[in-house]
Amino acid sequence: MDEIPRTDRTTVRRLPARGSYDRAQIHSILDEALVCHVGFIADGRPFVIPTLHVRVGDRLYMHGSPGSRMLKALAGGVEVCVTVTLVDGLVLARSAFHHSMNYRSVVVFGTAQAVDDPDEKTRVLNALAEHLVPGRWRDVRGPSPGELKSTSVLSLPIDEASAKVRTGPPIDDEEDYALPAWAGVVPLSLKAGEPVPCPRLAPGIELPDYARSYPGPGDGSRSD
Amino acid sequence: MDEIPRTDRTTVRRLPARGSYDRAQIHSILDEALVCHVGFIADGRPFVIPTLHVRVGDRLYMHGSPGSRMLKALAGGVEVCVTVTLVDGLVLARSAFHHSMNYRSVVVFGTAQAVDDPDEKTRVLNALAEHLVPGRWRDVRGPSPGELKSTSVLSLPIDEASAKVRTGPPIDDEEDYALPAWAGVVPLSLKAGEPVPCPRLAPGIELPDYARSYPGPGDGSRSD
Repeated sequence: MDEIPRTDRTTVRRLPARGSYDRAQIHSILDEALVCHVGFIADGRPFVIPTLHVRVGDRLYMHGSPGSRMLKALAGGVEVCVTVTLVDGLVLARSAFHHSMNYRSVVVFGTAQAVDDPDEKTRVLNALAEHLVPGRWRDVRGPSPGELKSTSVLSLPIDEASAKVRTGPPIDDEEDYALPAWAGVVPLSLKAGEPVPCPRLAPGIELPDYARSYPGPGDGSRSD
Repeated sequence: MDEIPRTDRTTVRRLPARGSYDRAQIHSILDEALVCHVGFIADGRPFVIPTLHVRVGDRLYMHGSPGSRMLKALAGGVEVCVTVTLVDGLVLARSAFHHSMNYRSVVVFGTAQAVDDPDEKTRVLNALAEHLVPGRWRDVRGPSPGELKSTSVLSLPIDEASAKVRTGPPIDDEEDYALPAWAGVVPLSLKAGEPVPCPRLAPGIELPDYARSYPGPGDGSRSD
């Protein structure tokens, strides 16, 4: 297994058996999540802002706009903690205490830098679009030089990161297994519904497969 | 409309039309979300940790364990930024630039305090369980004094908060509406699947309605 070296802040201390440093698992959680939460410090105070991201190799890229407080703070190269969380299920135990969630989360620590080079920025935006909707990029008008300029992209190496994962049934105290309460897991996943065409959609344009069966062949769940 | 007074850090600057300070809307987003992301500063660095929460009136409570780094940092009363994000859809525009997400997010800033009183803690854990799975609490064994002691609960007033919301179709540049690309929204929501009984479930225990049709009458979506 290819593990990312642990550091003090990536080592999972609470329920350490749930911790994982496996690079492939960390990457797959980042790849499945649509949204990340970026934590940073501004004026000595914590901020947490949701945004879109994409992983390319061992880098995490985040999307934003130079107008935002986050990106003003980050553009100079600012310490961040980027967290993604996939909710996989409600874990119903026989005792209130052992109720839990099945989830997969990743934290990435490091210094994020703005991407300034227009070619790199275009490649990242392409990757970001493909991460959200595979197949979409080739169907749309690409960014103009002005649009590129007004789009901010941040880059963060994924070299200080860990995952935390809970799976499986509830774990109850031995004496509680005899209680007459139903116990098990209610699986949860982000599912796509019926696409809603733009009211100004030109006539004769067919719904593309990537929108009809998002996110690809299967049951429409990003968890599969 | 009952608005929460704006402060410098809750004022939405990027795309201010998406900002909302309406208390009812802020509460409803907090109520629908299953997971929050808590940002705090430890050793001068940002951390973002996912956890469970429940709103009770004008307070946000968060669940955790005294073993975690987060709660060690927070127990003395620590500044946090708590963010929840509901992903509602992918917005497919005719240009790469105008692609977006439909989402509803809330940020709450303030100083979180540990809840020490066992009665208040029990009430909060009850509320937390009911937030996750309405109807569940009465079916399970309540917390013992020892379990209560080893469960941490944090309390945060919701008096410095704002929401940010995007809804509706893509907004393209006027000249792009003629492009032959499909445009519209692919709705997304967290859906429940078929409940998975615990392998050690005692015979004769029926699946309760709250697990069969999570999260209540409807199509199983928490977004409805």
